[in-house]
Amino acid sequence: MDNERRKRKANMKDVAQLAGVSITTVSRFLNGNFKKMSSETADKIKNAIEKLNYIPNAAARQMVTNSSNLIAVIVSNIDDYFSTELFKGASSILEANGYMAVLFDSNTNPDREREIIKTTSTYNFDGLIFQPNLNDVSHIFTEIAVDTPTVIVDRNLDTSMWPQVLTDNFASAQKATQIFKNEGYSRVIILSSPVDSTSTRRDRFLGIKSVISNVEIIEIPDDSYNKKKVYQHLKNLLADSTDRTLIFSLKERWLLEFVPMLIFDGLIDNDRIAITGFADTNTARAISPNSKFITQSPFLMGSVSAEMLLKQLHNEPIETQKFVVPAKFL
Amino acid sequence: MDNERRKRKANMKDVAQLAGVSITTVSRFLNGNFKKMSSETADKIKNAIEKLNYIPNAAARQMVTNSSNLIAVIVSNIDDYFSTELFKGASSILEANGYMAVLFDSNTNPDREREIIKTTSTYNFDGLIFQPNLNDVSHIFTEIAVDTPTVIVDRNLDTSMWPQVLTDNFASAQKATQIFKNEGYSRVIILSSPVDSTSTRRDRFLGIKSVISNVEIIEIPDDSYNKKKVYQHLKNLLADSTDRTLIFSLKERWLLEFVPMLIFDGLIDNDRIAITGFADTNTARAISPNSKFITQSPFLMGSVSAEMLLKQLHNEPIETQKFVVPAKFL
Repeated sequence: MDNERRKRKANMKDVAQLAGVSITTVSRFLNGNFKKMSSETADKIKNAIEKLNYIPNAAARQMVTNSSNLIAVIVSNIDDYFSTELFKGASSILEANGYMAVLFDSNTNPDREREIIKTTSTYNFDGLIFQPNLNDVSHIFTEIAVDTPTVIVDRNLDTSMWPQVLTDNFASAQKATQIFKNEGYSRVIILSSPVDSTSTRRDRFLGIKSVISNVEIIEIPDDSYNKKKVYQHLKNLLADSTDRTLIFSLKERWLLEFVPMLIFDGLIDNDRIAITGFADTNTARAISPNSKFITQSPFLMGSVSAEMLLKQLHNEPIETQKFVVPAKFL
Repeated sequence: MDNERRKRKANMKDVAQLAGVSITTVSRFLNGNFKKMSSETADKIKNAIEKLNYIPNAAARQMVTNSSNLIAVIVSNIDDYFSTELFKGASSILEANGYMAVLFDSNTNPDREREIIKTTSTYNFDGLIFQPNLNDVSHIFTEIAVDTPTVIVDRNLDTSMWPQVLTDNFASAQKATQIFKNEGYSRVIILSSPVDSTSTRRDRFLGIKSVISNVEIIEIPDDSYNKKKVYQHLKNLLADSTDRTLIFSLKERWLLEFVPMLIFDGLIDNDRIAITGFADTNTARAISPNSKFITQSPFLMGSVSAEMLLKQLHNEPIETQKFVVPAKFL
């Protein structure tokens, strides 16, 4: 993105420079505190404001302290444990550093996402920790002011002017699949929300495919689906082949939906069919204690994001543009 | 609380009245837009500001539109599905009415709760939807400005100056217990976080007790507990008696933790032991499809709270001070 193309608004510092006074004096003027100010000074400031077409806002007002102390954490869906833990991790670090973390839910809706970013800009949030909904976020990048400290979480963007904090989605899916392949599994049935809409799912899918090419995929829409139909589809695929088959869910939700049904029907009480997948809570493990799952570290990812944001806020250099927090398979 | 004891700050309207100009003109002055303003007018406003010791802030600035359009939804723990659905319900109504809902997580920490309320007041949020942590919230009530539209959710407060939106915790627990009693169950083992800390759990406990007096309770701390030890305690209690026993969990989390272990050990595959409890997601149902659970309607409770808040924002009368959204047993 071209920084120069964004028209830079005059700020309080510009007014102070043009008027030849300190920022504090401009602040006093804007706060209506004229007691310690000569008429000449007030006039100079008034003229500078007029000339620069300066529009003071909460932002400018906060220039005195240089901070609103609010950080927006924008997640794609607060119903996901991953997102709420991410927030808790970020919040713990930010709070210890005098900031208040505020949670926004884009509810997997790009329009709402855009609306939220506008709001954080209007209210001069000091920074953003942002889990975007879609891969193509260019339309949103134009909404975030270039000088707003920002960290992108959980989406692997090809180009980004901001640092990113990621799970090793490809590598962890690859590693888990390899372990099952070594045990003789030669076929995978993947349960997933539509794969192409986020980098997270795409990377997991490709990680599996890189090890076992015999892959069937059941794509389940997040908002509305027929549970019985999906389960029947899964059972048909399981009956289709006598190969040792791994059911690999790219999301814990589908494990919670379908594994109890498989257990109930006695379908995974054997060595021919195994289950695994990404599961951040302990629920999938409680349901199927003998299975292994891939667990991310959203709390840690939130903490790391907050650390990276603090560096930007303190104008310190950030060494890594992509920080990967490895997932665990256990 | 005594309204008169709160010292009222001068607002933009006061400045406009004293200067004999419109609010829009004061707003123009504060925004540094002097083009359409005579020097006399500017001086009048400047003098009025000085005389009233008026401190403009985001709040005053927003007087032109009379709104910041931000509503704070403060929940006790965003890891609970109940809390995130509550937010989504409130958000859907508020958004349709031109407000932006913002989520704060008090993380079951009363100090953090107080900090959040201070922040919402500093940043002039238009209203609060508030799920307090504790029964005794008097210390917090002193922090909320009396004129801030507020709705209390999910906590039954004996005295409250604000409307409350509640589940029928007592009645729904009572009703479910009665159904099991009619089926011959004469003993209940309750799984719960510490009962006395919230009205929600206390009411559920009392609802059960009102039907079956032979009650054992296993209190599990939310933050740290030994899963094996708790499970052993539960097994011992089950072995203690040959009475038909109902395991009643006051929270879905304990169902997800212990029901798979009970199923695995073959302990509830009979008529002597039944399970039920409060469960807002579909997971407990997926694990134990033959059991019935009590399900609240957090989305609806959030929507109702938002409607009640909008009435306050529009200065419309609210008929019910306690609005009960019944839970379902199915």
